[in-house]
Amino acid sequence: MRTSIATVSLSGSLTEKLTAASRAGFDGVEIFENDLLASPLTPEEIRARCADLGLTIDLYQPMRDIEAVPEDEFARNLRRARHKFELMNRLGADTVLVCSSVSPLAADDDALAAEQLARLADLAQDFGIRVAYEALAWGRHVSTYDHAWHIVETAGHPALGTCLDSFHILSRGSDPKDIEGIADIPGEKIFFLQLADAPLLAMDVLQWSRHYRCFPGQGGFDVAGLVRSVLHTGYDGPLSLEIFNDVFRQAEAGPTAVDARRSLLVLQETVGIAAPPASVAPTGIAFAELVTPDAEPLSAVLGALGFARTARHRSKPVDLWQQGEARLLVNTGTAVRRDGTGLAAIGLESPDPTAAARRAEALLAPVLPRRRAPEDAQLDAVLAPDGTELFFCATDRPELPNWRADFEDIAQAPAPGHAARIDHLALTQPWHHFDEAALFHRSVLGLHAQESVDVADPYGLMRSRAVTTDDGSVRIALTVGAAPTDDTVHAQHIALATDDVVAAARRFAEAGGRLLPIPANYYDDLAARYEFTDGELETYRELGILYDRDAHGEFRHCYTPTIGRVFFELVQRDGGYRGYGAQNAPVRLAAQHAVRRLTGG
Amino acid sequence: MRTSIATVSLSGSLTEKLTAASRAGFDGVEIFENDLLASPLTPEEIRARCADLGLTIDLYQPMRDIEAVPEDEFARNLRRARHKFELMNRLGADTVLVCSSVSPLAADDDALAAEQLARLADLAQDFGIRVAYEALAWGRHVSTYDHAWHIVETAGHPALGTCLDSFHILSRGSDPKDIEGIADIPGEKIFFLQLADAPLLAMDVLQWSRHYRCFPGQGGFDVAGLVRSVLHTGYDGPLSLEIFNDVFRQAEAGPTAVDARRSLLVLQETVGIAAPPASVAPTGIAFAELVTPDAEPLSAVLGALGFARTARHRSKPVDLWQQGEARLLVNTGTAVRRDGTGLAAIGLESPDPTAAARRAEALLAPVLPRRRAPEDAQLDAVLAPDGTELFFCATDRPELPNWRADFEDIAQAPAPGHAARIDHLALTQPWHHFDEAALFHRSVLGLHAQESVDVADPYGLMRSRAVTTDDGSVRIALTVGAAPTDDTVHAQHIALATDDVVAAARRFAEAGGRLLPIPANYYDDLAARYEFTDGELETYRELGILYDRDAHGEFRHCYTPTIGRVFFELVQRDGGYRGYGAQNAPVRLAAQHAVRRLTGG
Repeated sequence: MRTSIATVSLSGSLTEKLTAASRAGFDGVEIFENDLLASPLTPEEIRARCADLGLTIDLYQPMRDIEAVPEDEFARNLRRARHKFELMNRLGADTVLVCSSVSPLAADDDALAAEQLARLADLAQDFGIRVAYEALAWGRHVSTYDHAWHIVETAGHPALGTCLDSFHILSRGSDPKDIEGIADIPGEKIFFLQLADAPLLAMDVLQWSRHYRCFPGQGGFDVAGLVRSVLHTGYDGPLSLEIFNDVFRQAEAGPTAVDARRSLLVLQETVGIAAPPASVAPTGIAFAELVTPDAEPLSAVLGALGFARTARHRSKPVDLWQQGEARLLVNTGTAVRRDGTGLAAIGLESPDPTAAARRAEALLAPVLPRRRAPEDAQLDAVLAPDGTELFFCATDRPELPNWRADFEDIAQAPAPGHAARIDHLALTQPWHHFDEAALFHRSVLGLHAQESVDVADPYGLMRSRAVTTDDGSVRIALTVGAAPTDDTVHAQHIALATDDVVAAARRFAEAGGRLLPIPANYYDDLAARYEFTDGELETYRELGILYDRDAHGEFRHCYTPTIGRVFFELVQRDGGYRGYGAQNAPVRLAAQHAVRRLTGG
Repeated sequence: MRTSIATVSLSGSLTEKLTAASRAGFDGVEIFENDLLASPLTPEEIRARCADLGLTIDLYQPMRDIEAVPEDEFARNLRRARHKFELMNRLGADTVLVCSSVSPLAADDDALAAEQLARLADLAQDFGIRVAYEALAWGRHVSTYDHAWHIVETAGHPALGTCLDSFHILSRGSDPKDIEGIADIPGEKIFFLQLADAPLLAMDVLQWSRHYRCFPGQGGFDVAGLVRSVLHTGYDGPLSLEIFNDVFRQAEAGPTAVDARRSLLVLQETVGIAAPPASVAPTGIAFAELVTPDAEPLSAVLGALGFARTARHRSKPVDLWQQGEARLLVNTGTAVRRDGTGLAAIGLESPDPTAAARRAEALLAPVLPRRRAPEDAQLDAVLAPDGTELFFCATDRPELPNWRADFEDIAQAPAPGHAARIDHLALTQPWHHFDEAALFHRSVLGLHAQESVDVADPYGLMRSRAVTTDDGSVRIALTVGAAPTDDTVHAQHIALATDDVVAAARRFAEAGGRLLPIPANYYDDLAARYEFTDGELETYRELGILYDRDAHGEFRHCYTPTIGRVFFELVQRDGGYRGYGAQNAPVRLAAQHAVRRLTGG
């Protein structure tokens, strides 16, 4: 099935938008009138540019408030339409969108609307153009798809059909019976299908539509259900995205277009008209890779945490540090990030690394070279939207390429440590692509996205959303500032699971580490909220351990200092606690700011 | 009347918040629990810090979901309350806020709520503390102020009163009769009054409250009407701002605190309990001052526009360029802005410059030194929130200090030009202070704020709001990116009024100027939308003149190139056109981006 995207969904000049749509693999575009008006290219040049880029122009949207108006007004509308049809012939676009009128001049008169739309279609036919009439959710008299279809049916003109738009239909309610009427529309009279999702917000529908639309799968609408109904009619036009979103207007067009097409691929898979390689959920975290220009500070913290340097890469300056099943690679060789030490790659344990990578590639994740050096294992790896490299690994499965085989053991035996494995990773996302990151991790990696939570940082709200496997073997927390500030303010972190956070914290302190100091007021509040056994709270207070509780169990956690852009957390989950201590995040964030002020970091 | 602000309204650490509140002149603060928990200061240190800063701690807000719960749960709540009351004694805070419960454990039982609140008040009384019970708009069983008051009245406890919050009351509806019941509450039983405004959004009330509150006068609520009702009861506690706003959380605390207190001053004036010097509306624009490191490019454009250099400042490198009543100062002497040429000051013609400045000062506008050099006229001037200097001027009124007298005439006679005066100025606002800028211009300068309009820039949405005098003699358009990008993307501009934009444009072109080129597609669209006289459209197309029409008249306008951060517009208003050509702004913005790409500017 052909895919298309409205230029209004992307940022930049018309040329930038067309290029981004083509590179992401779209077959066509809808050209939004303002993009054409503002372009220095003539219609003929735009047509040629699209042809060069392999894009058809599937829809043009130049006119509003056409129908059910007094005759003199309609005459003006026809005059304008003639101009636009001439333009469309130059552009090579053969379908024009007409939205239901919002004009105060419009009459509540279906017969008049049908008659005028038929006259418009007559004119369009002379130019070889089809008119697609769509109900805006806030149309003055026509605001539902079945009403719009009734008018089209009454008009009975071969060049007049209807356009269905998932936002306008689903924003009015999500009862499946609301869309049953779609089955009554003959597929050949559905001239176009526009798709958008949106978060479920109780707000004015016009504002909601103009600012908060998002890609299918990112919001709360059953877009797939709607598409199924439409396909059932025999509709064979494009699936076209029309997304009005303040963030997309600002974000770089290239990545947005890729996110957009990925969302359509996933939608096509959901409704059963595309079959990319099946998703292969990871079963654990094989390793996390840190890059750093200077291994000393990191080595000191890792040593104090109980990690031992157990192996080194055969050809590159990469060390493996291990403790229990927690494995960290420390890479001093790559071109380091502008801001120094940071998390650069994640190894995901996969039942079938090659299949996992094949799905990722089919869903437009950039594929990384399979081996970095001739002697390295052939690892499958892709790039996540935030730039993190994701390796699909088969640790300890000798029949498969094994990353561990690239490392040679060092004599040094691991010291007895308390951390058993990586509990979760927290990755800071670029502001413009937070929702897309969740869709990526869900669709590409087969993880489940949890609810977003807002967390108050002293200098602005933060948003955090976890993507996890069912069993919690892989947990990634995606975080972002609720509005863009300096992205580097919020660090990434690696949380290490332990059965005894007090012992682990003590070991860290005894080895010379200094955990993030937590204010005394926090512990006074804990004392007010919960009852602890004798001395328990004093221990937490002394070490800087935070405490939380949910319906399932308890959570105790503490933090190392931040090195560059990354810090470590020790976490103890008891009794099935499911969260990440979000309740304590404001205190932790404030404490980190306080340390930064003191150290000038 | 005392003024107070909740720490949650400001950004930063508790210390930063207290300092900002004190500097802005607040008498007290409400301490939000998270700010205390995250602070490294002990309660005693916070108390001392507040005392040093001249701030009382008017309210503490540590507890939720207290009342109408099963007895065992209430026992835990009382235990927690005891801890918090001890803390409040250390802090020196004597009023605690209790919001109506949102807990699923809470029963719909007013008698139980009253009984438990009375027991809480009993305990509070032992600590010398008063309990203020407030209805949250989304409280589980108690969501209206009169319901909360009914429970307080039933409890009949001297240490239990009610807290009124304008958001929780006015978000439920704006019918004046909804607040009539306030008159029934004895003033001494209103223990606290929290104030917040909000834009009138049709959205989920919890989200609305948590993210979109704003200062009184910035939103759509009749906060003044509510305050009048409350004062009528004899309430004599503080007027306290409690604003949850994502933007304020990020913005620097100092300016936000000043904006906050200005809003309270204006509110106090509105309800008649404060009388700052009366507002003196300006009657025209005396001049606009540009600063530049290099006068050449500016001189070339001004010359081509028909301006002549008519005078120079007696002691400083400032030239006066004039054409009709349009006066521009070109200053090459001040420390220039990082980004070069820009608009630095505006001279506002004022019937009473000293009175105008006195009001500005009373409303917390920073006052600039009255004279820059000993020989200069004593001009009254203040700083606008965006850093623009505002001078209150009395041009051609010899009895008053006259800025013009600081300039000595140059022989050069003005060439015959077409610009008669400054039509409007467009000023880019810092992202965090857009709404505050409108309040500033309204309250300090006595201008009227028009509706905000959204304008699509190719790289993100822009927002624009005009503040004007009734007769249009002063028009300032405040603009901002709808989300923060690089602030410098959007330039300021000076629009010059002309009776004949075609002649003015031709003159500019003949003098070697090059107007912003407008795409041909734009004119094809004009031809589709309107009928023009013979040759009219061709002239616009040739020169780059844009066209708009509203119910009142017509608008023709064109643009010079951008120099540094500023460009000029020539505008012709006919028949009472009221707008600013917002319809054409996307085309203009795209054209400016295209030029910038070509010139690398």
